[in-house]
Amino acid sequence: MVAGPIILCVVQNVKITVKYDGTDYQGWQIQSQGRTIQGELTRVLSVLDHRSVTVHGAGRTDAGVHSEGQVASFQLERAFEPERLRDAINGNLRHDIRVASVEVADESFHARRSAKQKTYIYQICTAPVASPFDYKYAFHFRGPLDPRSMQEAGRLLVGRHDFSAFTVLDSEASDHTRNLVKLEVTERDDRLVIIATADGFLKYMVRTIAGTLIDVGRGYRGAEAAARALEARDRSLAGPTAPASGLTLLQVDY
Amino acid sequence: MVAGPIILCVVQNVKITVKYDGTDYQGWQIQSQGRTIQGELTRVLSVLDHRSVTVHGAGRTDAGVHSEGQVASFQLERAFEPERLRDAINGNLRHDIRVASVEVADESFHARRSAKQKTYIYQICTAPVASPFDYKYAFHFRGPLDPRSMQEAGRLLVGRHDFSAFTVLDSEASDHTRNLVKLEVTERDDRLVIIATADGFLKYMVRTIAGTLIDVGRGYRGAEAAARALEARDRSLAGPTAPASGLTLLQVDY
Repeated sequence: MVAGPIILCVVQNVKITVKYDGTDYQGWQIQSQGRTIQGELTRVLSVLDHRSVTVHGAGRTDAGVHSEGQVASFQLERAFEPERLRDAINGNLRHDIRVASVEVADESFHARRSAKQKTYIYQICTAPVASPFDYKYAFHFRGPLDPRSMQEAGRLLVGRHDFSAFTVLDSEASDHTRNLVKLEVTERDDRLVIIATADGFLKYMVRTIAGTLIDVGRGYRGAEAAARALEARDRSLAGPTAPASGLTLLQVDY
Repeated sequence: MVAGPIILCVVQNVKITVKYDGTDYQGWQIQSQGRTIQGELTRVLSVLDHRSVTVHGAGRTDAGVHSEGQVASFQLERAFEPERLRDAINGNLRHDIRVASVEVADESFHARRSAKQKTYIYQICTAPVASPFDYKYAFHFRGPLDPRSMQEAGRLLVGRHDFSAFTVLDSEASDHTRNLVKLEVTERDDRLVIIATADGFLKYMVRTIAGTLIDVGRGYRGAEAAARALEARDRSLAGPTAPASGLTLLQVDY
């Protein structure tokens, strides 16, 4: 009896950083229909590894949301050199998704479960005319907005809280407590920027905070309105969900 | 006999500044087919003025070329308030064309004939991976490029010269003499930028200068190659025409 071939299978755990213009995508998470970031990466990696590869993302960005620093992890059976793998993936993607870096990670690394905190940026353009180079990445709100009252409202949200007022009612998460480490509102020229860092974010959380702060900045609500919604855990006391296009996942920390 | 009505017709000469992402356009000049910047402005202004309006642009940008400061002029018969006209035009355009400003100009003002000089910027990204937010506006050349030899080559082109080597053979212009006032090459991080100012530019002139400087920067040609092509007025001695997407009309001076 002849012994079968011995198959050496070296599985490597890989961590990648992914930037994308989310305009033309149905968000991160793979769907039965429509183009998604996870779907595109899964397709390309499965071709490269000659098998079905499962791609884990640090966070599920919504349809139309962008990324400067999304992180994903997956296992590969084929050996690779990081920069060549990066170029091979990019060579098979549209130019609106780019793998910025590839590295070999510890066996235990998992893009979502290992994430310690995430930072999102929400951009608002307050100029009378939006730039044709920018309108996909900043919400155009013509109007005066008072950054000081927005900062004040933002400060009241910082800390470990139940953020039920700032997510959707049918949120999949059972526990709505998150630690909002930082919430900054800065203004430069005709650009108002909200930067939020937390150990995790609920669905629509940054966009609902942004919409609430915009309501405060335009004078529709007082600075204490955000804190009141937070305390009451009442979505109806918070502002509208700001458009997805203004939101970018900036960084994931491990 | 009853006199007919007296029709008061106040014609005003208007100057506008137009920014556009040229990616989806067949250039400035109106064509029998395909979407153009001049065509879009003509369509919108003719509706607003209830008659066929002729729009003059400072320069005819090629297909795919962008603008941060294109200037156009036209005459309007209907009275208007500048900011309302700006908003009315923008409200009828796609977001990738924006009228940044509207002002009433002297009777004698003509966007092309009154222009004293124009400034173009050509952007090159030399990073291993281009940004998904940038690939439409910078030519991705995975370097290395030596900015010093490019600067040296550029300096040799400055001045009043016959730029026949840096245009197309079938250029419509009979006189190929232009005064290149400034040609700067600057580098910051993974971005190399060529800024060119002249009293006028021939067709493909900035892109051919850019292509020649890139050849110099990568070591394919010596810094003196550009000057040699210039002197010989020989297109075949200059470098390739760099891609349109890297080029932006920055400013028109009057």
